[in-house]
Amino acid sequence: MSHIYAGVDLGGTSFIAVVANRKGKVLGSSGGPTTPKAKAEETIEQIADHIREAAKEASVKMSKIRAIGIGAAGAVDPERGVVVRAPNLGWSNVPLARNLRKRLGPDVVLGNDVQVAIIGEHSYGAAKGTRRAVGIWIGTGIGGGLIVDGRIDRGFRGAAGEIGHMVVKEDGPECSCGRRGCVEALASRSAMERDVRAARNSAVLTIMKERGKDRMTSSVIERALEADDRVMKDVLARAQHYLGLLTANVVNMFDPEMIVIGGGVAQRLKEKFVTPIAEVARSRFLRPDPKHSIRIEHATLGDYSGALGACALAEMNS
Amino acid sequence: MSHIYAGVDLGGTSFIAVVANRKGKVLGSSGGPTTPKAKAEETIEQIADHIREAAKEASVKMSKIRAIGIGAAGAVDPERGVVVRAPNLGWSNVPLARNLRKRLGPDVVLGNDVQVAIIGEHSYGAAKGTRRAVGIWIGTGIGGGLIVDGRIDRGFRGAAGEIGHMVVKEDGPECSCGRRGCVEALASRSAMERDVRAARNSAVLTIMKERGKDRMTSSVIERALEADDRVMKDVLARAQHYLGLLTANVVNMFDPEMIVIGGGVAQRLKEKFVTPIAEVARSRFLRPDPKHSIRIEHATLGDYSGALGACALAEMNS
Repeated sequence: MSHIYAGVDLGGTSFIAVVANRKGKVLGSSGGPTTPKAKAEETIEQIADHIREAAKEASVKMSKIRAIGIGAAGAVDPERGVVVRAPNLGWSNVPLARNLRKRLGPDVVLGNDVQVAIIGEHSYGAAKGTRRAVGIWIGTGIGGGLIVDGRIDRGFRGAAGEIGHMVVKEDGPECSCGRRGCVEALASRSAMERDVRAARNSAVLTIMKERGKDRMTSSVIERALEADDRVMKDVLARAQHYLGLLTANVVNMFDPEMIVIGGGVAQRLKEKFVTPIAEVARSRFLRPDPKHSIRIEHATLGDYSGALGACALAEMNS
Repeated sequence: MSHIYAGVDLGGTSFIAVVANRKGKVLGSSGGPTTPKAKAEETIEQIADHIREAAKEASVKMSKIRAIGIGAAGAVDPERGVVVRAPNLGWSNVPLARNLRKRLGPDVVLGNDVQVAIIGEHSYGAAKGTRRAVGIWIGTGIGGGLIVDGRIDRGFRGAAGEIGHMVVKEDGPECSCGRRGCVEALASRSAMERDVRAARNSAVLTIMKERGKDRMTSSVIERALEADDRVMKDVLARAQHYLGLLTANVVNMFDPEMIVIGGGVAQRLKEKFVTPIAEVARSRFLRPDPKHSIRIEHATLGDYSGALGACALAEMNS
């Protein structure tokens, strides 16, 4: 049997499918936006089409693909292969794995998008070879995942890694979870957008308008920083401060060999995003780490963290 | 060879030595206060005497003791058996294991007091049989330890479990570590004592005077609660609130099957201490746990958590 896998990163607004070998080399890829308000059946057919397209580009027959992995945004049940709830897709209890297998043939394995991206970075990217690492993923929300003994560690109930809802500033701003002071409410891309909008005198809104964006995307953030926008710089620095606190809390509790920081903003700004976070964190390590034996780095697989992680997930489970 | 072990809990102000079988049954014990300003040599001789006394009570010859474990307050180097720094004992780089072995015969294994107490509760107490647990120990400071796959998990640098310095309230009170808003500065016994003293109109100071205590010990706290002292009740409730936040942060990140809460106050107040902590924590679990599949309980070995943990540590390493 060949060792070729397909992986899909199914986000709230777009997806990417890749076909890759077991070394994480992308042989073919295909992706695009999801269709808003499409029925689940239609979106699943789109996913199938993108996998077929990626296989075609890779010159690999579907029958040669050993297994398919999917990382999906939202609450998933990996055991049953069901997307329990994906608000951005409007999905509720969609048996994605079974439906996709019926269409394409190979076994389908499902995981949470952030955990799958961290599996990707651990298998092929920044955290390759680490035995004990923590991934911190910053996007609309903040998610995370633990690597213990060289494997993803899901915890007792499969709920490990929810570091976005660590309270670091009691009485801080309200969070999407209904509580206050979670780091997600202080340092996610959405939290930064909220703070930029509240400041009013920022170039960000103009840049968004120019680019036809209704959200403060990573590319908008980058452009505003290039334009030396004071509000953007202050808001980013504040978010980095809280991400530094989070990183220190995680290191003091869990003592990993590496923190890998991923998601859209990290991918776009790289060291500019991660270096200030690392500085705040290191100043707060309870056991000092003067030689930087603990690495704090950005993800390196770019757009492919999730899709390649899905390939690695498929390999692990086949 | 017999399976009899000796274990010592070496605190800043007192020690307890036990001799126990591998099931954690205490066959003999001996303990007492440390002598303030004693030389390290003298204190080590005292420890040796207490171990001999415990062995005598157990009717066990020293030559039948397979190994000796010690949990010491402060920074220890388990590899070399050295107490690197123990401010309360005035120790710095004391080769405790070697010195004690020379006096008594059996191998001596050294560990940090909190981690050793958590090993005790995991081996014989509240957390017995758990595969994945977190210990939260509240005393002068707040310490912790992780159990993963049924074993103590020390992390990449041996520094895992420093949950006392998790920042939960940025801009909160100053901590002994020099930073602000660590949970230790909000909810340790010392933090509670600071807040009670600041309030002035509390019965606590009178109770301390009556009992000849210069610190707000667990027994003083208990007495003040029995006397329905409003300040003590408020200060305790506030500490429990922050310990609830800490517990939720730990559960959301680490997803253990159990949180075991130990240390002097927990041992003294039991459910009265732990139940309010658990209530705050459960209201903040990101993944709800309506059936309480995650247990949140107090330590059950009482004064023997540390000394029995030291026996278990000795057994693991012999």
